[in-house]
Amino acid sequence: MHTSTALLVADLTGVAVFAASGASAGVAKRLDLFGVVFVGIVAALGGGIFRDLVIDKAPPLAFADWRYPATAALAAAAVFWLHPHFSRLRTTVLVLDAAGLGLFTVTGTTAALVAGVPAVGACLIGMLTGIGGGLGRDLLTGEIPAVLRREIYAVAALAGAVTVAGSARLGGDGPLALVAGALLVFGVRLVALRRRWSAPVATDRPLRQRTPTG
Amino acid sequence: MHTSTALLVADLTGVAVFAASGASAGVAKRLDLFGVVFVGIVAALGGGIFRDLVIDKAPPLAFADWRYPATAALAAAAVFWLHPHFSRLRTTVLVLDAAGLGLFTVTGTTAALVAGVPAVGACLIGMLTGIGGGLGRDLLTGEIPAVLRREIYAVAALAGAVTVAGSARLGGDGPLALVAGALLVFGVRLVALRRRWSAPVATDRPLRQRTPTG
Amino acid sequence: MHTSTALLVADLTGVAVFAASGASAGVAKRLDLFGVVFVGIVAALGGGIFRDLVIDKAPPLAFADWRYPATAALAAAAVFWLHPHFSRLRTTVLVLDAAGLGLFTVTGTTAALVAGVPAVGACLIGMLTGIGGGLGRDLLTGEIPAVLRREIYAVAALAGAVTVAGSARLGGDGPLALVAGALLVFGVRLVALRRRWSAPVATDRPLRQRTPTG
Repeated sequence: MHTSTALLVADLTGVAVFAASGASAGVAKRLDLFGVVFVGIVAALGGGIFRDLVIDKAPPLAFADWRYPATAALAAAAVFWLHPHFSRLRTTVLVLDAAGLGLFTVTGTTAALVAGVPAVGACLIGMLTGIGGGLGRDLLTGEIPAVLRREIYAVAALAGAVTVAGSARLGGDGPLALVAGALLVFGVRLVALRRRWSAPVATDRPLRQRTPTG
Repeated sequence: MHTSTALLVADLTGVAVFAASGASAGVAKRLDLFGVVFVGIVAALGGGIFRDLVIDKAPPLAFADWRYPATAALAAAAVFWLHPHFSRLRTTVLVLDAAGLGLFTVTGTTAALVAGVPAVGACLIGMLTGIGGGLGRDLLTGEIPAVLRREIYAVAALAGAVTVAGSARLGGDGPLALVAGALLVFGVRLVALRRRWSAPVATDRPLRQRTPTG
Repeated sequence: MHTSTALLVADLTGVAVFAASGASAGVAKRLDLFGVVFVGIVAALGGGIFRDLVIDKAPPLAFADWRYPATAALAAAAVFWLHPHFSRLRTTVLVLDAAGLGLFTVTGTTAALVAGVPAVGACLIGMLTGIGGGLGRDLLTGEIPAVLRREIYAVAALAGAVTVAGSARLGGDGPLALVAGALLVFGVRLVALRRRWSAPVATDRPLRQRTPTG
């Protein structure tokens, strides 16, 4: 398998996993098939569309390569029909989601650096590529974005982005830094997940009842 | 009347209808005049702004041609002042909305194809041009987007987009395919509306009460 | 101090003030440190990112110049740690916010005019540059945007944008029109704030309870 094929497979795996997370949120809101697929597509492709808009890559990859929306739609539809079987797979999904976050973050950071964005901006774009789809998913389903309430999620992405951008700054080896950055995100997320398994999120419920601040 | 004039009139009619739908949502939320006009403008122009961003047309038509925001603002203001009279016009508005959806979808798909976007991506962009304004309207007014819960709305748009892109792929006649695609969207929507008149949407209320999945 | 330095200082002051407003909203929603900083960054830089996307300036200034995100992050973190002391500063923050709105509106309008956007579109882009960050802040924190319910906020921005675009149309003196436009926004906001101090917003609560309009 060539490197580019391996990258494409990895990328589409990330798309499928994020689509599944979006579809799960849609199922929980009792959306119909189309709604579930739509939220899945936004979750899978939203971060990449934002990345391509800010680095002026037109059209965004999500519209230029049919395999991206097709993978997202299939994964979301699979969740719609099979979700009763998915409760057992919850851990698997969380682990894959951590892998997807790492992958999207490092490819987003790299794309921004290649497009000539300075290091700090490239880190932000990389982080937003990783978390953007989940943001869109939560906005569509009427939730305050989960990433805003789970410190370790976006911070893990930022750490991976900084690894990639820092290495590029120091003239470091590209592929190696990508792998290191993605593994860092992945590892931090796994540790965070393991720790949270016993940590109740006590502030979840009252958030919506508070008075607007404006 | 020249073809281009006819297209402009049709386009601005779609803008006015979508602005009216946005303004109605704003009135229902008891927004003030400016809020109503703002939601109307987003509903009317949001889909087109997204389309122009992803195909890298700068500035978007909504900012390049003053007749677009002017039409949207006037239509929204008219709803603000006249809405007590509008309950009788509800059917008219729904029919016009179906026409606007068809029009925006086919012009969005065509614009994407002309900009060199491949067929699948162009269909997605066309569909998003049609439904994007309504998405923005619902996000601004704090609702889970209606399009996510009405299967036939976005699927109708997608069918029209596929008609246009498929015909272009086969070297079909441009204007004819546009008309066919728009009529298809329009017809599917009318059938869907007629069927829903007796179909209560039973799942509307409990959606907001569910626990976040995130 | 050179003019460009003065402009940069003024711009970063606006960024800091808007970041503080976003961070305050995040604190009120009991977000964690990262969530507060993220909402602060969106509130501070969201309007400018939208402006740069529609005038096709890539990458947006928020990603091209590290001082923008750094200022926003520092200001938001300061609010997170110091907010118990901030209730006394509320008036100061509102006054600075009015100054930031004026500044962002006139620089947004000018950037659009320089990019070749016609006058009406440039006014809309300028207004959206001023109010866009607050819109993003409210969407992220699950509120119907405050700007939709405070008529004088966006209208003040629009008045400033019209001043700048109108003056440019008439061949007026650039810097002078910028100052006049910013002062107009600032003044209108101060008057509006003073008047509202005794005007209860009675419709605040029931908004969320209404039935979806769709």
